[in-house]
Amino acid sequence: MEKRIKDSFDRQGFMQYLGAELITVKEGLVRITCEHNEQLTQQHGFFHAGVVTSIVDVACGYAAYSMMPEDSNVLTVEFKTNFIRPANAKKIVAEGKVIKSGRTLTFCEGRVTDETGETVFATMMATMACIKDKR
Amino acid sequence: MEKRIKDSFDRQGFMQYLGAELITVKEGLVRITCEHNEQLTQQHGFFHAGVVTSIVDVACGYAAYSMMPEDSNVLTVEFKTNFIRPANAKKIVAEGKVIKSGRTLTFCEGRVTDETGETVFATMMATMACIKDKR
Amino acid sequence: MEKRIKDSFDRQGFMQYLGAELITVKEGLVRITCEHNEQLTQQHGFFHAGVVTSIVDVACGYAAYSMMPEDSNVLTVEFKTNFIRPANAKKIVAEGKVIKSGRTLTFCEGRVTDETGETVFATMMATMACIKDKR
Amino acid sequence: MEKRIKDSFDRQGFMQYLGAELITVKEGLVRITCEHNEQLTQQHGFFHAGVVTSIVDVACGYAAYSMMPEDSNVLTVEFKTNFIRPANAKKIVAEGKVIKSGRTLTFCEGRVTDETGETVFATMMATMACIKDKR
Repeated sequence: MEKRIKDSFDRQGFMQYLGAELITVKEGLVRITCEHNEQLTQQHGFFHAGVVTSIVDVACGYAAYSMMPEDSNVLTVEFKTNFIRPANAKKIVAEGKVIKSGRTLTFCEGRVTDETGETVFATMMATMACIKDKR
Repeated sequence: MEKRIKDSFDRQGFMQYLGAELITVKEGLVRITCEHNEQLTQQHGFFHAGVVTSIVDVACGYAAYSMMPEDSNVLTVEFKTNFIRPANAKKIVAEGKVIKSGRTLTFCEGRVTDETGETVFATMMATMACIKDKR
Repeated sequence: MEKRIKDSFDRQGFMQYLGAELITVKEGLVRITCEHNEQLTQQHGFFHAGVVTSIVDVACGYAAYSMMPEDSNVLTVEFKTNFIRPANAKKIVAEGKVIKSGRTLTFCEGRVTDETGETVFATMMATMACIKDKR
Repeated sequence: MEKRIKDSFDRQGFMQYLGAELITVKEGLVRITCEHNEQLTQQHGFFHAGVVTSIVDVACGYAAYSMMPEDSNVLTVEFKTNFIRPANAKKIVAEGKVIKSGRTLTFCEGRVTDETGETVFATMMATMACIKDKR
């Protein structure tokens, strides 16, 4: 399961582009980090909301995927992100967690924090779909 | 107003990194395009949900900003994105539109389509905040 | 199809309790109205956000249901509501519209307005699921 | 603060109509219960998504309000609800919790469970606004 997720992560051109790193892969729980650089910023120099959202979406997606059958695929149906405070940090950590894993749909919660995990920058609620036929 | 938005857009390291281009700036309506390349993909080679979300967030943000006072700034409070179908296209167009502009909060709707505008890949509902003191 | 939806609506104890009325049933489009009374208010005497949300959820649900096979059922997966302005009106009209109808998931957009349809009180984005086995 | 919230709750015609009861009021945390009856059901006899949403919205709203200045008021800006499983219970408990309380905006998380708190029926992410002038 870990290998399946790591392989899929490595095929995501965008994750490599962001310099994102997969640091935790457990059943129902995935963590991804990303280091600050100027190419990931909004107009005030903080992490862009799009970067924050991208990595926590992927963390939620793989958390869901970790509980899906081997011959399946995961797709983001929808998500909502609340931006609690500007992501003013050298490194951000996105955590995705499964709330309920169903046959077709999986509900996840995510959060993006600083390295200590104490300052929350954003929270996510996401719905993921299990696609049965490999694509 | 157009200049203010273009300048702010140019300061977003992440938008340049994505190769995103600001193509329409009107009062309450902004459009941004982005061309496909391998660095913007998810594991199946389509546009990454994070890229799709990033550019429509920015389109909504500047649509809101276009109706805010000059000495203000815009911040994304929250958004929700529905992924209608995989963004399988050479170029995507994100449109952000103001639904209601208030003193503090502005509500926007966004959508991401192909170049013709006929195939909708994603829709967004977003809340933007007007920050009075320039930061 | 209209009969199927009307029958289902009539079985919703809560819709009757609210005095909600089904006024339009077309393929992919449903409208429901509700008249103001003191039992539907929040602390300032306007329509309660919960009432506003309830009827637009149902409008979206039946809009989705109108495009599903006969031997199926509809379930709300999730929704998001933006409250544009206080619902200060004698009567509110909720409209639910299908954006994309899929085999399992249907995406809808909804809005709640006054009787003229000109003043928007709330907007909704919703995901509905088609449940194949009748329950 | 408790009295202020209880008084406001009692002025909500809709909460009384639902038979909802305020059972916990702490700083940043509010719980509301509601008992099952036929008038609160959807077409399958379970709690209606609208009822579930209404009470957790109010729980979040008052959780936010508990941390606002005395001469202020609270307004729901937006919320998103995920329906994890059908609310098949005799009594539901909605809990609203403050994630971050700001001068203007407060972010809350909510959940609706059975009486034991173990079975989660729905989760909410909400944004509340502090309105300074009493209305």
